[in-house]
Amino acid sequence: MRLATLRVDDHTVAVRVDDTSVVEIAGAADVGALLHDPRWRARAETADGPAHVRQGIEPRRWAPVIPRPGKVICVGLNYAAHIREMGRERPEHPTLFAKFPEAVTGPYDDIVVPGRLARALDWEGELAVVVGSSCFRADRTTASAAIAGYAVLNDVTMRDYQYRTTEWLQGKTLQASTPFGPFLVTPDEHSTSAEVRTTVDGEVMQSARIDDLVFDPADLIAYVSELVTLSPGDVISTGTPGGVGHARTPARYLANGSRLQTAIDGLGEQSNLVRIEV
Amino acid sequence: MRLATLRVDDHTVAVRVDDTSVVEIAGAADVGALLHDPRWRARAETADGPAHVRQGIEPRRWAPVIPRPGKVICVGLNYAAHIREMGRERPEHPTLFAKFPEAVTGPYDDIVVPGRLARALDWEGELAVVVGSSCFRADRTTASAAIAGYAVLNDVTMRDYQYRTTEWLQGKTLQASTPFGPFLVTPDEHSTSAEVRTTVDGEVMQSARIDDLVFDPADLIAYVSELVTLSPGDVISTGTPGGVGHARTPARYLANGSRLQTAIDGLGEQSNLVRIEV
Repeated sequence: MRLATLRVDDHTVAVRVDDTSVVEIAGAADVGALLHDPRWRARAETADGPAHVRQGIEPRRWAPVIPRPGKVICVGLNYAAHIREMGRERPEHPTLFAKFPEAVTGPYDDIVVPGRLARALDWEGELAVVVGSSCFRADRTTASAAIAGYAVLNDVTMRDYQYRTTEWLQGKTLQASTPFGPFLVTPDEHSTSAEVRTTVDGEVMQSARIDDLVFDPADLIAYVSELVTLSPGDVISTGTPGGVGHARTPARYLANGSRLQTAIDGLGEQSNLVRIEV
Repeated sequence: MRLATLRVDDHTVAVRVDDTSVVEIAGAADVGALLHDPRWRARAETADGPAHVRQGIEPRRWAPVIPRPGKVICVGLNYAAHIREMGRERPEHPTLFAKFPEAVTGPYDDIVVPGRLARALDWEGELAVVVGSSCFRADRTTASAAIAGYAVLNDVTMRDYQYRTTEWLQGKTLQASTPFGPFLVTPDEHSTSAEVRTTVDGEVMQSARIDDLVFDPADLIAYVSELVTLSPGDVISTGTPGGVGHARTPARYLANGSRLQTAIDGLGEQSNLVRIEV
C-alpha cells in the first residue's frame, strides 16, 4: 500500500494512492496523524472517501509525506561501498544527527534559499524509514515490526554550515530544504534491493543499492529506541551513498535553477527546483 | 513573573508562581501551551484560577517547565573562561546540537538509567532560554524581544555515547534525563550576572557567571532563526561552564544514588536523584 499527504484547498488530507486513483482517508489530516491511530493500516485499506484521478494531480499538491514529524533522525556514513572508497573503517556504531521538523518540504516544492545560505548547497539522496508504532528499547524483531514504511528523502545540506563546528546540525536543518515523499510505501511492497538515484539537471550524481547499508532500518530503530522512545510518524533517514557534490573534484553544489531529482525504485521520485534568492 | 507547569491529578496545568501561592492559569495545560497564545503574558498576569499554597506543594509535582518542547537546541563550548582554560580559540560560530523532546524530565524527578547506559553519566548545568514568539531570520533586537524567559536545565550527558562518533546527539538525548525547570522567569526579573551552580552530593562541581557566555541568548536566537523558524516554547540551552566530570582527573561520573543539584540565582534550583538500574 502507498500513502501520501495531499494538499486540498487550504488544508491537507492523508490519501491512499492506488494505480489510477487517490482516495482520501477521512479524518486524517496527513500521514503522520493517520499513523497515530493504531488501526491506521485497516483504516487506510478500507478508506472510501473522495477520490481523485491520480494523473490529474498537479505535482505541487503532494505535501511532505509526513509534514511535521515528531523527530527526524539522520544517519551519516552508512553505505559500505562509500565507506571503503573513502578509506575508512566500517563503523561500529551509527553516526546520528537531527533535523528539526521545519526542515522538511514537499517532493515537488521549490527549495528557496537566500544567497548567503546557498554557498555550498549539496544533495544527499536517502532512504527514509517511518515509524508506525511506539517503541522503546526494542530488539531487532520488535523494531522491524514497528516500521510503517519507506519513503524518499533528500538530506539537502549546507556544507559550509555543516563544517563550521564539529556538530553538523546547523548545516542540516535549513527551513523547508529537505524534500520528503511523495509516498510512504508499506514494507510488503518495498524491495531491499532497490536503488537510490540522485540526479542534478539530468546528470546522475548518486546511484547505489540500499542493501549496501551498514546499519539497516531495523538496526537503526533498535539502536535509537535504546536511547529514546520512537513514536508513530518519527523518521529515520538512513544515510547517503557516494557521489555528493562536496566530495567531487572540483566540488559541485546546487545553483539557482538546478533541478534536483531523487528516486528510489518502487518508492517514487522527487523533483525540486532550487531557487537562490539574491 | 514566574511560570511553571504543575502536575495535578492525572494532568498538568500552567501556573503563575507568586511569593506564597501558585495560581492556575485556566485553559493552559502547560507553559508550552500557554506560550502559544500571543496574549500569554496578560493571561498569566491576570490569572485567578484555583490557588495552591506554594510551601505545601510536594516537589515531584513540578513538571518540566515545558514538558514537550517543539525543539531543544543545545550549545557547546560557550563559556569564555572555560574555553581559555581548555586552551582553545574563542569560537567564531556557536556549536549547536539537538535533544529530542522526550529527553526532558521534571526538576525533582529521579533520573532513572539502565546500567548499560550509565557508564559515563555526566552533568552540564546550563541556562536555558525559552522562545515566546515565532521568529525567523531575526536580528538581535527582534531576537531579544522574542525571549519569553529563562530556566535552569541540566544537559545530562552519556559521555561514552557522545564520543562513539563525531556527532554528539546520541549521548545527549536519553529518555527523561534532562531536568528542566522548575520555573520560567520573565526577562524583567532575570539578572545576567546570575551564577549557575551544579553540585553532586553537596560538592560544588560547576560555578560560573552566566555573563561569561560567548554567544548570549539574543545572539543564539538570531543565529538559529537564520536557519529555521523558532516557535513559542522552543528552548535553547546556552552551554555549560567548566567543571564537568569527564574533564576531571580522574574522571567522575554520576552513580546510583547521586544527588544532582543545579541552580541559577533567581531561577530556582533542581534536585534530582540518580537511580541506576541493574
